[in-house]
Amino acid sequence: MAISEDRDFHEVVSDSEIKIMDCTIRDGGLMNNHLFNDETVKAVYDACVTSGIDYMEIGYKNTTRIFSPSDYGAWKFCREEDIRRIVGENDTHLKLSAMADAEKSDYRDILPKDKSVLDMIRVAAYIHQVPLALDMIKDAHDKGYETAINLMAVSVIEIDDLDKTLELLASSEVTIIYIVDSYGALLPRQTRSIMKKFLYHAESAGKQIGIHAHNNRQLALANTLEAINLKANILDASMAGCGRGAGNCQMELLMSFLHNPKYRLRPVLECIQYHIEPLRDKLLWGYDIPYMMTGHLNIHPGVAMQFNLGRDKGNIVKLFNLLGRGEGG
Amino acid sequence: MAISEDRDFHEVVSDSEIKIMDCTIRDGGLMNNHLFNDETVKAVYDACVTSGIDYMEIGYKNTTRIFSPSDYGAWKFCREEDIRRIVGENDTHLKLSAMADAEKSDYRDILPKDKSVLDMIRVAAYIHQVPLALDMIKDAHDKGYETAINLMAVSVIEIDDLDKTLELLASSEVTIIYIVDSYGALLPRQTRSIMKKFLYHAESAGKQIGIHAHNNRQLALANTLEAINLKANILDASMAGCGRGAGNCQMELLMSFLHNPKYRLRPVLECIQYHIEPLRDKLLWGYDIPYMMTGHLNIHPGVAMQFNLGRDKGNIVKLFNLLGRGEGG
Repeated sequence: MAISEDRDFHEVVSDSEIKIMDCTIRDGGLMNNHLFNDETVKAVYDACVTSGIDYMEIGYKNTTRIFSPSDYGAWKFCREEDIRRIVGENDTHLKLSAMADAEKSDYRDILPKDKSVLDMIRVAAYIHQVPLALDMIKDAHDKGYETAINLMAVSVIEIDDLDKTLELLASSEVTIIYIVDSYGALLPRQTRSIMKKFLYHAESAGKQIGIHAHNNRQLALANTLEAINLKANILDASMAGCGRGAGNCQMELLMSFLHNPKYRLRPVLECIQYHIEPLRDKLLWGYDIPYMMTGHLNIHPGVAMQFNLGRDKGNIVKLFNLLGRGEGG
Repeated sequence: MAISEDRDFHEVVSDSEIKIMDCTIRDGGLMNNHLFNDETVKAVYDACVTSGIDYMEIGYKNTTRIFSPSDYGAWKFCREEDIRRIVGENDTHLKLSAMADAEKSDYRDILPKDKSVLDMIRVAAYIHQVPLALDMIKDAHDKGYETAINLMAVSVIEIDDLDKTLELLASSEVTIIYIVDSYGALLPRQTRSIMKKFLYHAESAGKQIGIHAHNNRQLALANTLEAINLKANILDASMAGCGRGAGNCQMELLMSFLHNPKYRLRPVLECIQYHIEPLRDKLLWGYDIPYMMTGHLNIHPGVAMQFNLGRDKGNIVKLFNLLGRGEGG
């Protein structure tokens, strides 16, 4: 199948098919065990509503059999009563999503859609978890939700495996297939190649394509732009980039790029100024050189997160040596 | 003339034609009136030598008739004795450059090459200054230097003006023509369009193309990568991005992308850790939302620099309103 041409620039900025998903609480929560207070979650929700953002992912739908509620905040589990405490009946245009991690969720915890204010279940899966993810997607689909799959760590997937997996996903119930650059390793030209593969399988099957980027190499926006050029329509971003490690594509950068009349930037800036930036010293997300190193090495950011929490924080030369990248000089 | 194909990825990483220019002191000095102490300048110089960087721009060659030596450090003027205090005879592979600003320099201050350790004179000019810049280039060329022109604020140049200017430059003595995104406004696809224009005029005239990016929209690396794809060979970067406003393309990001065997990352990391990061609180360079706003508006970062020095620093909503981007909500 031929891949259609790059999107035209004016098509991009006015395209009503483009949708933004806010991940601030869900992904940022990976930096504080989702121990946000209600005021913060409400502020992000209100900013999403006011700014015209299309979806908000409010947290994970993970199981208490693996994660203890005494160690984690409400947004690790997204119980219906917790969500409603923030959003009421969510009588707004904003759609709400929760992420179900393959192997860390129990789909018996997911209510039928008519009992929930959630609109979407996104299943996150590494490639070896895709068979399980397909079961989870079918369950959520049958319960009445929009469904998406986040194909994690796409930068380490073998090309043949990717083809086979995309074939499987194209024939599943899922409506959105996400490129997820978990390690923040992708370069724009690699994103382009991967997008072409996604398009090849997904477009004729009527699936939408999304992208979720991390900023380890300061390429989260650039990779998102490249995906948009090739007609990715569902774009993940976080307020001030708040997310695991180097963080996500920044909402403010993405929204100012799009300058689509359906979005308004000021509520995003207000939320960042009054609610997100004050958390930075505690959550410690955002680009730095340790995260650059894990991105460049195409590995999970966990080692950089640990390093930044330890007494050697700032000793980038030591981390460089620890990661085994020592050179002669 | 047809434009040659994009560079192949493996060609990029092994390409010995690619050269890196360090701008830490020259561009970073715009944040502290070039009041660096000798230890810092020497540390950057040593890191450039040890890491295999090809050029170091050590400062400006500006005139004391405009800038008072009591207000500015030595690197605003780059007197020969100041340079030699740091580099001696510079008996290394590293080439040294100084920037001569059109209308802020006096070319009588530039010594004949055989009296100087400088190897290159880069002339910085906005488009209306190009006629003057051509005189300056001829002078530096005739004195025996390599010459480059930095065509500033390329994001606001009218397309017809750009064509005419590039024609002039193609027939001049200059050997390197630089795309300079002074406002950090360019998107990668715009960089691509502009690069094609540069290539069209420069390639057959035997000129090299360089790029100097700013990071207002976190696209400095992405724009540099796009220029590399289209065979830009001279790449500006700064240690930790140290440069005016949002800063430049980060040396550490660029070098880890290139992973060309002629470069070594550790000396760069050492320089950053021990000499550059300790300056951040004073120099205040680096991406933030005020710089994002000026980049998005395609204006000079001066207003954001002033804002960040004032008592309203952090009040991004106020700046958004001041910049006249108020919206209904």
